[in-house]
Amino acid sequence: MALIVQKFGGSSVKDAEHVRNVARIVTDTYNKGNQVVVVVSAQGDTTDDLIEKANEINPKASKREMDMLLSTGEQISISLLAMAIEALGYPVISLTGWQAGFVCHTNYGNARIRHIDADRLNAELDKNKIIIVAGFQGVNRLDDITTLGRGGSDTSAVALAATLHADCCQIYTDVDGVYTADPRYVKGAIKLNEITYDEMLELASLGANVLHNRSVEMAKKYHVNMEVLSSLEDKPGTKVKEVATMEKMLIKGVAKDDNVARISVMGVPDEPGIAYNLFSLLASKKIDVDIILQSIGRDGTKDITFTVPESCMLNAMTVIQENKEVLRISDVTFNTDVAKVSIVGAGMQSNPGVAAKMFGALSEANINIKMISTSEIKISVLIDKDKAKQACNVIHEAFFPVEA
Amino acid sequence: MALIVQKFGGSSVKDAEHVRNVARIVTDTYNKGNQVVVVVSAQGDTTDDLIEKANEINPKASKREMDMLLSTGEQISISLLAMAIEALGYPVISLTGWQAGFVCHTNYGNARIRHIDADRLNAELDKNKIIIVAGFQGVNRLDDITTLGRGGSDTSAVALAATLHADCCQIYTDVDGVYTADPRYVKGAIKLNEITYDEMLELASLGANVLHNRSVEMAKKYHVNMEVLSSLEDKPGTKVKEVATMEKMLIKGVAKDDNVARISVMGVPDEPGIAYNLFSLLASKKIDVDIILQSIGRDGTKDITFTVPESCMLNAMTVIQENKEVLRISDVTFNTDVAKVSIVGAGMQSNPGVAAKMFGALSEANINIKMISTSEIKISVLIDKDKAKQACNVIHEAFFPVEA
Repeated sequence: MALIVQKFGGSSVKDAEHVRNVARIVTDTYNKGNQVVVVVSAQGDTTDDLIEKANEINPKASKREMDMLLSTGEQISISLLAMAIEALGYPVISLTGWQAGFVCHTNYGNARIRHIDADRLNAELDKNKIIIVAGFQGVNRLDDITTLGRGGSDTSAVALAATLHADCCQIYTDVDGVYTADPRYVKGAIKLNEITYDEMLELASLGANVLHNRSVEMAKKYHVNMEVLSSLEDKPGTKVKEVATMEKMLIKGVAKDDNVARISVMGVPDEPGIAYNLFSLLASKKIDVDIILQSIGRDGTKDITFTVPESCMLNAMTVIQENKEVLRISDVTFNTDVAKVSIVGAGMQSNPGVAAKMFGALSEANINIKMISTSEIKISVLIDKDKAKQACNVIHEAFFPVEA
Repeated sequence: MALIVQKFGGSSVKDAEHVRNVARIVTDTYNKGNQVVVVVSAQGDTTDDLIEKANEINPKASKREMDMLLSTGEQISISLLAMAIEALGYPVISLTGWQAGFVCHTNYGNARIRHIDADRLNAELDKNKIIIVAGFQGVNRLDDITTLGRGGSDTSAVALAATLHADCCQIYTDVDGVYTADPRYVKGAIKLNEITYDEMLELASLGANVLHNRSVEMAKKYHVNMEVLSSLEDKPGTKVKEVATMEKMLIKGVAKDDNVARISVMGVPDEPGIAYNLFSLLASKKIDVDIILQSIGRDGTKDITFTVPESCMLNAMTVIQENKEVLRISDVTFNTDVAKVSIVGAGMQSNPGVAAKMFGALSEANINIKMISTSEIKISVLIDKDKAKQACNVIHEAFFPVEA
């Protein structure tokens, strides 16, 4: 008998028919002799609808009241899924975040889980019940409801799996696994059977959009075996684990990220401390800086070019403009017509020539590289946004040649 | 400085504009130097929409899961109202039933309040906060959410007022008070300034539909001063209290109840215990019996006629049919084309001639009385359903002559 945590996102429970489908997956798993704990998100557009309701009344509502409001979305889902499972004749109970023992920090809207008090969960498992837990939410030391921020339900599921020492944490989505590239625009993208936590982390942060980083980081920390699979098709998905032994791929995937802007700061004095001042200022405004490139000094000044998420661009530009004199910058420019394309794979560490292969593919396609960044398991390049899909295709073909 | 509990029903918070209106009423009260605790129901049709969602998935869902689902309606309302009050710049906090300390019995769907643990409420009042509490809900000893059944939010408000020793419990509705009759069809209906708990109880149970009986019973028990008033007009409503001293009306109101069916059981042996068997059987099926009339015995048998809510009629008939032999009944018939019209008033106790005046008005209008029932402060008659509105009008005119 295994203990399995299953998580279903909003699109998997968007209406009565989908809820019934999830009920079938859950009860099939239970029928095979497993203990099952299920985490669900709010149905379809519920969260957006609630945000709209709030905005109509107070666009600057406190985060505490937003959490009070938004947490109802998951509460609706858990009760409906429990009802669907009752209809199939299985013992089931739904639990809100606080009932399931999720104790969080008091950071409304983006709380972290402190710990899970599993007494109630264990009591219900002892009664052989299927447990349906509201994702994305917990309660803080004031007894106030807090939500976990983006990707929170994935994190709820992994935290439950870690606390209950589950054998597996299955994340059901509307895709059937993790691919070597986005199949919507890369021809020949291949589904991976396995991927390591680190590779998944790089892919997630690069825009692969399958799992949220927080959940993968937590899975890595607590050695939780994850699996990404489809709620619409009954077939194996992609396993995320410590070491993916079975595959010998050089790289695991090609990803693109369109949410990128490049900022260039020019005429900075070529002195120590200048870069520190600039990036600590941006950090204090919670602006994530990704790739950084510094030109070699000339005439006693240098240029610093870096990328930020496009959504932070205006903020970043404002902060820099306001502090131009303190930072001793002569000019600052930006460009949002860029995208980041990356390859990820633990295999590249011990394989020279990976970068050359990537750059060669881009060169052959006449795509200009504006910036380069590398880590042990990743190579990213910044290119023109309108060439990003083409770039993914040519790189993917270089590493995963389509067989004739 | 007074402590005032205010309750707003679903129609008072049905959309953003109405929520903002309630926020103004609440903050006006707070501005006058009062402490304010507010109870709200779910917005407009939210509860019905949630019930529909549940029915689509499982029409026989457990009451526990229904409570989990339905309690989200009030949680949405409290957060939205708190946001509207934040927008006006006042200190405010919303609390769910369990956060506000409502501990209930484990009777899902129709729980009774055991007690209110007021620690959190008092702490927030000490911080000068306006408190918004979710009506209709609490938590039982298992930490499961329970709802209070019909009229639950009124009961929540009165329970809070009793626990916090509030100076007044104001029930805001879409009518501006308690009338001597339903103004929608009785010409010259007069708004009452005051009414006693007992009179209000009789009127509520007779279909006046302003306050739910449970809340009035609780208000009477704990000496909570209630006031019924409109959320749409800023004027005094009707006060509900122990003794209504200021008014010398003989009767306080005329009410009709259409949800009535008459059942006649014929050919019952004229022996002791027969009525007991019949009515204890109905009681065991939770069927409320109202007026009972027993014919004088003839040929060793008698007839028993009684009324039940029309909604219980089928149930009652089935039970009686199934037990015809045990009950030794020869025949049973029913009639749903009846209505109950009543007059209520503590004044009638010491005023003979009230019944005569009522019967006279009906007789003059040629309305036949089928059954009569009286109590110390109430006289009810059963008449044809299609004459009920006319009956209310002629009785009302007899007691409250429209001045020329």
